[in-house]
Parts: sequence; C-alpha cells; structure tokens
Amino acid sequence: MRRFVIGRAKSLLNRSYQYHCQDQALLRPLAPSHSRFLSSTPGLDSSSTSSASSMAPPVSLDTINPKVLECEYAVRGEIVTLAQRLQDELKAKPGSQPFDEILYCNIGNPQSLGQQPIAFFREVIALCDHPSILDKSETQGLFSADAIERAWQILDQIPGRATGAYSHSQGVKGLRDTIAAGIEARDGFPANPNDIFLTDGASPAVHMMMQLLIRSEKDGMLCPIPQYPLYSASIALHGGSLVPYYLDEATGWGLEISELKKQLEDAKSKGITVRALVVINPGNPTGQVLAEDNQRAIVEFCKQEGLVLLADEVYQENVYVPEKKFHSFKKIARSMGYGEEDICLVSFQSVSKGYYGECGKRGGYMEVTGFSPEVREQIYKVASVNLCSNISGQILASLVMSPPKVGDESYESYSAEKDGILSSLARRAKTLEDAFNNLEGVTCNKAEGAMYLFPRIRLPQKAIKAAEAAKKAPDAFYCQRLLNATGVVVVPGSGFGQVPGTWHFRCTILPQEDKIPAIVSRLTEFHKSFMDEFRD
Amino acid sequence: MRRFVIGRAKSLLNRSYQYHCQDQALLRPLAPSHSRFLSSTPGLDSSSTSSASSMAPPVSLDTINPKVLECEYAVRGEIVTLAQRLQDELKAKPGSQPFDEILYCNIGNPQSLGQQPIAFFREVIALCDHPSILDKSETQGLFSADAIERAWQILDQIPGRATGAYSHSQGVKGLRDTIAAGIEARDGFPANPNDIFLTDGASPAVHMMMQLLIRSEKDGMLCPIPQYPLYSASIALHGGSLVPYYLDEATGWGLEISELKKQLEDAKSKGITVRALVVINPGNPTGQVLAEDNQRAIVEFCKQEGLVLLADEVYQENVYVPEKKFHSFKKIARSMGYGEEDICLVSFQSVSKGYYGECGKRGGYMEVTGFSPEVREQIYKVASVNLCSNISGQILASLVMSPPKVGDESYESYSAEKDGILSSLARRAKTLEDAFNNLEGVTCNKAEGAMYLFPRIRLPQKAIKAAEAAKKAPDAFYCQRLLNATGVVVVPGSGFGQVPGTWHFRCTILPQEDKIPAIVSRLTEFHKSFMDEFRD
Repeated sequence: MRRFVIGRAKSLLNRSYQYHCQDQALLRPLAPSHSRFLSSTPGLDSSSTSSASSMAPPVSLDTINPKVLECEYAVRGEIVTLAQRLQDELKAKPGSQPFDEILYCNIGNPQSLGQQPIAFFREVIALCDHPSILDKSETQGLFSADAIERAWQILDQIPGRATGAYSHSQGVKGLRDTIAAGIEARDGFPANPNDIFLTDGASPAVHMMMQLLIRSEKDGMLCPIPQYPLYSASIALHGGSLVPYYLDEATGWGLEISELKKQLEDAKSKGITVRALVVINPGNPTGQVLAEDNQRAIVEFCKQEGLVLLADEVYQENVYVPEKKFHSFKKIARSMGYGEEDICLVSFQSVSKGYYGECGKRGGYMEVTGFSPEVREQIYKVASVNLCSNISGQILASLVMSPPKVGDESYESYSAEKDGILSSLARRAKTLEDAFNNLEGVTCNKAEGAMYLFPRIRLPQKAIKAAEAAKKAPDAFYCQRLLNATGVVVVPGSGFGQVPGTWHFRCTILPQEDKIPAIVSRLTEFHKSFMDEFRD
Repeated sequence: MRRFVIGRAKSLLNRSYQYHCQDQALLRPLAPSHSRFLSSTPGLDSSSTSSASSMAPPVSLDTINPKVLECEYAVRGEIVTLAQRLQDELKAKPGSQPFDEILYCNIGNPQSLGQQPIAFFREVIALCDHPSILDKSETQGLFSADAIERAWQILDQIPGRATGAYSHSQGVKGLRDTIAAGIEARDGFPANPNDIFLTDGASPAVHMMMQLLIRSEKDGMLCPIPQYPLYSASIALHGGSLVPYYLDEATGWGLEISELKKQLEDAKSKGITVRALVVINPGNPTGQVLAEDNQRAIVEFCKQEGLVLLADEVYQENVYVPEKKFHSFKKIARSMGYGEEDICLVSFQSVSKGYYGECGKRGGYMEVTGFSPEVREQIYKVASVNLCSNISGQILASLVMSPPKVGDESYESYSAEKDGILSSLARRAKTLEDAFNNLEGVTCNKAEGAMYLFPRIRLPQKAIKAAEAAKKAPDAFYCQRLLNATGVVVVPGSGFGQVPGTWHFRCTILPQEDKIPAIVSRLTEFHKSFMDEFRD
C-alpha cells in the first residue's frame, strides 16, 4: 500500500510513537545514542550459565532498526514487483497478457532499454581490465589507437598499473587530476583533485553526506518536492528530518526562494536545525533546468542561512532545450566571488546518466568544497572504511569528464554516438510530453533536461473512490491499471512527493525511438478507457 | 594519537557525555530517534523573513554526526598517512630515507604488491566490458576459447546483454544462480540464488546487516578481539555497542565458547541486547582456521542464544596448513540438521581475497539464510536504494565461485596461477612467522589462513615510557619507528583490539617472495636496535 509523502509521514510518526511506547522503559535510562565499546575483562572461564531455551525468532519486523522500516524507495517498489511478476507470466505463457513486453519506464536505466554504450569508453575499460593484451598486434585491429593510448595513460596513473588493487580511499590520484581538469574546463574556475571523492555511483556519496550531517531527527534537510526518493530514503536511514520545499508546477517546476524561506522558518519554529539544501538540477523527476539567476539566488540563500548546498548534478549533460544551459553551482558560486571560505558546496556526478548511461558500472564522484580540513578528514575516514570505489567505475568517471577531443581517432564516432543519443532523447521527450498533454485531464511540463516527464493527472472522483476501496493512492491505482493494460511501468507521484490532492506519475523518456509511437498509442488508448470507466 | 580499544572506548564514552551536556536541552523534549517528514503546506509567498547574518561555519567537528567522529579505521589510519608522506619525500628526494621503497604490509591488497591477476578472470571481464569484439576474428588470437565462451554465457544471463544497465537489486539472477551452484558444490548442501545479495565488496554487506540489526546503543554485537576494524567502525557508525570476546593467543587464537558465554552474560547484565555474533574465519588479523567441532559449538551457541551468526568467510580460499580445512558455517549448521527455521546465518564473501585478490573490482556477496520473508524484504529494500553493485564485480564474484574446470582450455594455466600464489603465500607466512619468533621478546602464532601475522611484542618499560612521552600507544610507537627505519608499514595492534597491557602489530604476508629476505633482515636489524635502545 502506497500513500503520498505527507500522508506517509503522518503514519510514520504514528508508528514511531508506537515504538516509543513499546520501548519506553528501555529508552528512558539512556545517554544519547552514541555507540560504545563495552569494557570488560578478557575472559577466563565464566561460571555464569546462559539461559538456553526456545525463544522468538531473533530478527523480526519488531526488532529491526525502525529507520530501515521507515525508508521507502518507490523507483523499485511495489509497481516493479508487479512488473516482474507479469514478465515471468509472459515468459511462461506468451500471449497471456494484452502486451508482448514490459517497458520499464520506472527507472533511468538507458542501456536496459537498448541504448548502446559509447564505444571509446568501453574500449578503454576493457583494455584496463586486461592490460596484458595492450602490446599485442591483434589489439590494434580491435581497438582504436586513442583508446589504446588512453589505457596506457591511465595505467601509468595507477601505482604498479594494478587495476586490481584498492586505490587511495578517494580514488586514484591521477584519475582525480583528470576529473578536476574536466571540471575546470567545464566551469572556468579551478578544481582541486583533493576535493574529489570517487564513489560507486552518486548514491553512496549522498549517503556519506547525510551520515556526516545528520545527528538526530532534529537535523533537517531541505529537499524539493517532488524529489528523487534516494533523498527521502537516505534521510530516513540516517534518522534525520526531510524538510520539504515545493517546486511550483505552474511555472515549470520553478524553485522559489520565498518558498525556501518559508519552509526554513517553519522548520525552525518546530525546533529543527536545517543543515543543508538539496537541489537537483536538471530536475528529477521534474526535468526543469534552473536559470542562472535562480541559481545565484539559491547560492545567496545558502550563504546567508549557513546551509550546506548539496547539488545533485548527475544530469548535467542532459539538457534538451536551446534556451537553457547547465551551470554547476560551483561555477555560479565562484562567479559571485564566493570561495572556499564562504559556502559549503557538494556536487554529485555519476557515470549512470548523461549520454553515457553506464548505470551498471557504478561510477561517480562528489566534489566537496568549503569544509574545514578537520571535517574533510572525517569524510576521508568514512570513505576509507569502505576502502575505495571500483576501479572501472573510477576510470569511467575520468573518461566522461575527459572524452575524446577534436583530432583524436575516436572523436568523430564518439561525437556521432553522443549527438545521436542526446538528440534522440530530446525528440522522445517532446513526443511523450505532447502525448501526455493530449490526454483528457493531463498536463505535463516540458522536460528541459534529465530523463523524465512528470505529468499531472486529474482523476475523476469515481477513480479516487475506487483507489480508496483498493487501499491504494489514486496515482498508484492509475499506474497499476496502466501496467496491467499496456506493460508500461511508471512510478506513481506519491513515491516522489507532490502537493497534497494532486496526482502525477514519473515516466522516463528512455524507450528506444522506434517504440515511442506504440507507447503513445497504448497510453492514449488506456487513458481514454480509464476515463470512460471512471468519468463522474 | 592512537589508544587501544578499551581505553578508547572509555574516552569515547566520556566524549559522548560531553556532547550530552551540550545538547541536553535540545535532546530532552525528543521522541525516539525516528526520521520524519515535516508536514507543511505547499508554499505561497511567506511573509516571515530569515535571520540573515554572519554566523559560525555551518559544519564543524562540533556539529557533525558524533557517530562519524567515533568511528576509527586503523588499517588506513595515521601510520598510512605517515607512509604516504615518506613516499612523497622519497619520490622528491631519492636517497633521503634509509630505504628505497615503502612496503605496504598494512592492508590485504595483494595486487598493489605485485601479485598478478588470474588471466582467465580478466579475460572474461574484459570481454563482457566490450562485447562488440566477441565475434571478431582477432579476438580468438587474444583470448582463450573458454573465456570467450564464458563471456557469451554471462552476457546471455544479463537481460539485453546490457552490462551497462542497473541489474536486479540483489544482482543479476543468472550470476546468482552460478554462485549458488558454487556454494552447493563447496558445501554439499543446497543454496538458493534468492538468498544471495551481490555487493561492492564485503564491506557494504557488513554495513547493511549492522544497519538492519542495530536500533540503539543498547543493541550489542559480539565481535572477536582482535578484530578487523571494519566491524568496530560499522558498529560505531550505526550507533550500536561492540561486545568484545577475546581470542586466546595462548591456544593459537582459540575461540572459546565459555568466553562467548561470559561476555554475553556480562553484556546482558549491563542492559545490552546482544543481536549477533561476528566470527571471522579464517581469522583477521589473527590467521587462525577454526576446527570443525569448534564451529559446531559456535552454531549451537547462536541457536541457543537466539543470535544472528555473521560469518566473515572472505578468506575461505586462504588456508595454508594441511591439518586445517575451511568449512562454511552454513555447511556446519546444515550438517547438524539445522535448517532455515533454526538459525539466522549470513556468510560474507569477497573477490578481494583468496588467490584472486581482486580488491579494486569491489565484488562480493552475502548469503542470507534463516530470516523471515518480511525481514528479507527489508534487506532487499535497503539494497534497492543503492540500485545494484557494479556489474564487473558481480561477474567476478560468479567467476571465483565457478572457476575453470578440468578439461577447459584455461584450466591448466589457471591451476598453475592459483597454486603458485597459494603455495607462495604459505611459504611467505612461514618465513615471516619464523622471523618474528626469532626476535627478542616476540612470539607469533602460525598463520593457518588469511593474509596476516599478528605477532605479540613485549616491550621494555623504557619503550613504554618513551611512547607515553610521545603520546602514543606503545605498539603505535614501535610501528612508527619501524616505518621510519625500514619503510615497512604495519598496523599497531591497538587498531584491532588486544588484551589490555599486551602489544601486537598486524603484518600482511603479501610482499612478493623475492622481497621477503630483505624485509626479514630489515625487521630483524630494526628490532635489535630498538631493543638495544630501550632495554631496561
């Protein structure tokens, strides 16, 4: 059963009070929740005997960490479980469903829907994985000259050329040099390789920052609503409070400073210390690209309020409209004259998005600026507990920040692949946007960037009642019906948060272009029959 | 400054009380530490104004999560920072140190010290990274036939052959099938692919279980002392209590059930609910391999006491003595007639250890058995927040559990590589063990398995006083002197925990064999002059 964010929040609070009552006696005598080592004397034989008897199972929902229970992640939630079941049924009994394949539009996973990897990147990765073929003659027939050269360069940056060794906890220094140079080229402002922490995708980096900043539920994180549910999940797992700020659907998911201020004050009045502002640009699930002066106002707000700016910039290559351009928050801050001393700023980047879409490689980094050396040391320490991120992902992160250049052997094919993917994504976004806007009661903002559309669906009262009867949020009810009828998997808006009483779903723009017409006609047909069934 | 575990525990407790006092007013009115969404109305313009003024930096050691502050990870701690500085100095000024290279014996990172990867594994990984060369004729000249065949098999197990797509949150189903078959072949008992969670190395798997089981500092984890500091770090980060049980150095780091019982009762008497028992077999840092009947007694203990058994079995391929054999705890439990209903058992495995030593690939898995479907669903949910582990690591995990077999083209070379590495490790372990035992005041148990020796050093009072004056633990003082004199990096025993008043260090057996004689003579020479300097 899925409920919308605020509703869920209430139920979670209720649940946490239940736990409170159960655990009251246990909790009362405790010091604050710090871990500790029990001191004890090393053991000689003990005369005490254990109470060996039959007992309840050692682990149940009542005895696990309640933060785990509270965490939700709709992108791989109930709807996906249903999709997997339908897929199994289709495989076992072809023709058993009114469609012949499941189209996973629930997750930004381009290569699962047929997008091909950029050849140059894969050549370099393969050569670094098996360096002993690098000087064989056959290799020159199989790999481009610049891929071979790049592989040698990268191997020379890795101590002992050992791609199978743990690296520095922040990632291979030479690869961080390359990434820093790529950031400098992008922004026109210096980047320091020691500020880069390479991670297994962006998600672990987000967790690290949440872990660092959240001390208790009295620490709040300003997050956009709608938001990518990694944020709500991570805040729940780390025991903090999500302080929502609403993006304005009417102005193309505009981010209003007045709304930030209002929610910040509201949180303060409830005793919450707001530690950071999360901004996702380009937006997920909303697809907007922030205007430069809006970004400046956001930086100013963080500076004035003493907030860490957590900038999710993983869609920096995914901008589809000529009137908008991606600007990193670091570039904006530096162009305003704000340096290390002025603002704590973390930028997240991933190899999973962009035109490369290398989700399975789990590469990414965060650029951490404005923190004191002592705090940086703490971030380093936490990174070192997990030793390092995977080296192929590290290499790929360096490649996406330093792709082939004019004159390189691979440049032409690389450019053709990149432009082909990005221009096709732009066309798919437009076609789907138009299709959604043609549906009765549906409005859909433009996907200026990222990989998603987030149409608003106005459902008839009869549908809302039917959802209620089925114990589902209305948008979840709609999405499940859509899946059952068409095989198209989208995620209900309630998984991302939305203005109470409004309903949406998130649909990726990732199915291959030749499939889009069929998707549009199936969606259109489904929506019409749904509305016919439930029209008041 | 490094202190030993128990001492540190006390200082941490003191520190946490300081925090308590500071935060008292803040903490008092709180419900238990559950995260929550602040409910609020979506924003129109707000009339409230923010307090924009100059303020303290938003993030300092006083305002980060104290659990992060408490966490320590000695394997990459102070001594490694010093080593890196010395390495930089050597590079800048060759001849500036009394040695010509730094030998990193602080960490189980075989390929960083020259161990070569198993060719078959790397061939398959490279082919899966760049599948478009699979059917090119040159490829047959570069890759073995069985590697090509295996790559095809693996690609066929991945939906759409998309090695760049996110997989199922637990990992690619076909790879889990292979791993489950490998476990069955190893143990002679069934394994279920749905029990396998593929992870980026074993560390994230350990964190997941700690996150699941720890609700507060009143939840305890029985951990061996000495222990691999991932455990103490993870317990600290998740806010639980480490309940130590001491391994008995006198009986070759024996694990005594009476000691487990004593510490369990002791913890209970302090109001701690012990949730799980961590066992590292073969041992890290201690190198012992548990005897089968000892394992049976451990399983019985967990069953009787209702404890989850967390079995760190990452060194399962690293056994160097003919009289000992690795047995998985699952095999032991099943052979005792204990099934799913009887015991919660998690086994951790990694591609970083064994004879493969592929640390940089960050592959691993945990096999989770005995948990209820509802709890399993919670583990799945947490895994899905991070989407999936890296696909190359997943593939490698399947390969180490299913290496070439008799008759395969690569079998002979594969076997030669494997046997060469393992027999060399056994020789190196023996040579270093003998060398340590020849030092004045040093005793060293045999490394029956794993990758480490953990010699005990009996230091003269004068050395202990000198360490005190330098504000260092005596073993840290010794290790730093050793590094400065020889370039050999080892980790002080205080980073792993040890019986109070005893001193040790952990030294890997990983330097290449041709370097061992020089290491032995440098160590011997250093130790002699150290003892001469400080002899009482």
